[in-house]
Amino acid sequence: MNLILLAAAELAADGCVKLRDARATHLLRVLDVTHGQTVRVGIIDGPVGTATVVGVGGETVTIHCELGDTPPRPPVDLLLALPRPKVLRRLWSQLAALGVSRIILTNAERVERNYFDTNVLTPACYGPLLIDGLQQARDTRVPGVSIHRQFRKLVEDDLATVSDATVRLVAEPGATTTIREAVADRRRERVLLAVGPEGGWNDFELMLLDAHAFHRVGMGRRTLRSDTATVALLAIVSSAIRD
Amino acid sequence: MNLILLAAAELAADGCVKLRDARATHLLRVLDVTHGQTVRVGIIDGPVGTATVVGVGGETVTIHCELGDTPPRPPVDLLLALPRPKVLRRLWSQLAALGVSRIILTNAERVERNYFDTNVLTPACYGPLLIDGLQQARDTRVPGVSIHRQFRKLVEDDLATVSDATVRLVAEPGATTTIREAVADRRRERVLLAVGPEGGWNDFELMLLDAHAFHRVGMGRRTLRSDTATVALLAIVSSAIRD
Repeated sequence: MNLILLAAAELAADGCVKLRDARATHLLRVLDVTHGQTVRVGIIDGPVGTATVVGVGGETVTIHCELGDTPPRPPVDLLLALPRPKVLRRLWSQLAALGVSRIILTNAERVERNYFDTNVLTPACYGPLLIDGLQQARDTRVPGVSIHRQFRKLVEDDLATVSDATVRLVAEPGATTTIREAVADRRRERVLLAVGPEGGWNDFELMLLDAHAFHRVGMGRRTLRSDTATVALLAIVSSAIRD
Repeated sequence: MNLILLAAAELAADGCVKLRDARATHLLRVLDVTHGQTVRVGIIDGPVGTATVVGVGGETVTIHCELGDTPPRPPVDLLLALPRPKVLRRLWSQLAALGVSRIILTNAERVERNYFDTNVLTPACYGPLLIDGLQQARDTRVPGVSIHRQFRKLVEDDLATVSDATVRLVAEPGATTTIREAVADRRRERVLLAVGPEGGWNDFELMLLDAHAFHRVGMGRRTLRSDTATVALLAIVSSAIRD
């Protein structure tokens, strides 16, 4: 936890918050804070800043916050064919940590239907995991999440509403264009990256993505499991935009 | 399993192998092979090629192999502060899939001592996980693994023997040099990438790495968990060398 995230409503008018949950435990047991010490804080979807410890009780910590700027939202959105629940459970916090503005989960031919019947798709499950990832990466901007059971409807009708990214990429093992080449002249634009299911998109899905301005990009000749591929691709996209 | 890996000793003089283990099950249940069909095969640390199914029994499959070239070993070695066992267990196959020639695990101040007392560090545990990763990525070159309990001795005395990489990088959140900049004029050389523990290298460790020609490289302002960071950094290094 490299940043303590607070909901705006937790903050009293005088800028103080009395913590009594896992955040208090972290401050007391891991950071071993004492009166007067400062820690990094952020307001969910709001500014980051510094908090001074103004009170330490048995299991509670009271902090006083001085807030600064709100971080920009990450320049990348992710369109991801729904992975199996066990894999998705591990991905949530990693996606938030890597920096994704929107997580758009979709059906595809090679997504098993029962993947949709899981609590891993409920905000009660993924909300805290996204917050964990943000606290790791010192960000405050919670990724938006949407779940789409009809791939064609998503791509044809809904995508422009869901993501405002102007560069669209789809990872395709056979593609010879690299991510760096694809974003070369468009590094100030937002990117939407599409990552397929284990086994890949089918021909119809790829052609539909082609028809909606997705550029096929490759990542060399190694085929990765979809969760490893997602982390690797997001890292390369972020690096290509930034570096 | 995008490639079936065989040990050289399994191959009979006529190029045939009778499979009866998980590989046979995969061929029968997942690929649903029939007589005459071809599948991708590779010899561990040897060539890749094509195998023709020449016999299907109840639980066995006999294949005849035609082998070609041996893939080059990946141009990247990894020096990794030992992660906790649960994290390392998940990393083995991902490292093999991403393509690492040597995995050099080391102690560091912020590595907990009991992390060394785990079966995850035994070849019986990690061997099959590395093979899984190679079968995913269609590679045959098994990463070499070494475990070092003394960081200083490793860096001062053993590293030149363990890795022949000529470009040395250490990931450091504060660094402003990007990986791409660090490898810009040296893209034909092999890279050794050092990734620290959760909480980072301490000052002594960083200075020792500095003194042994490691260039500090950054990955933007987000702090990642060490397993996410490892996958992300390896992806960016491989992309910077390749693309």
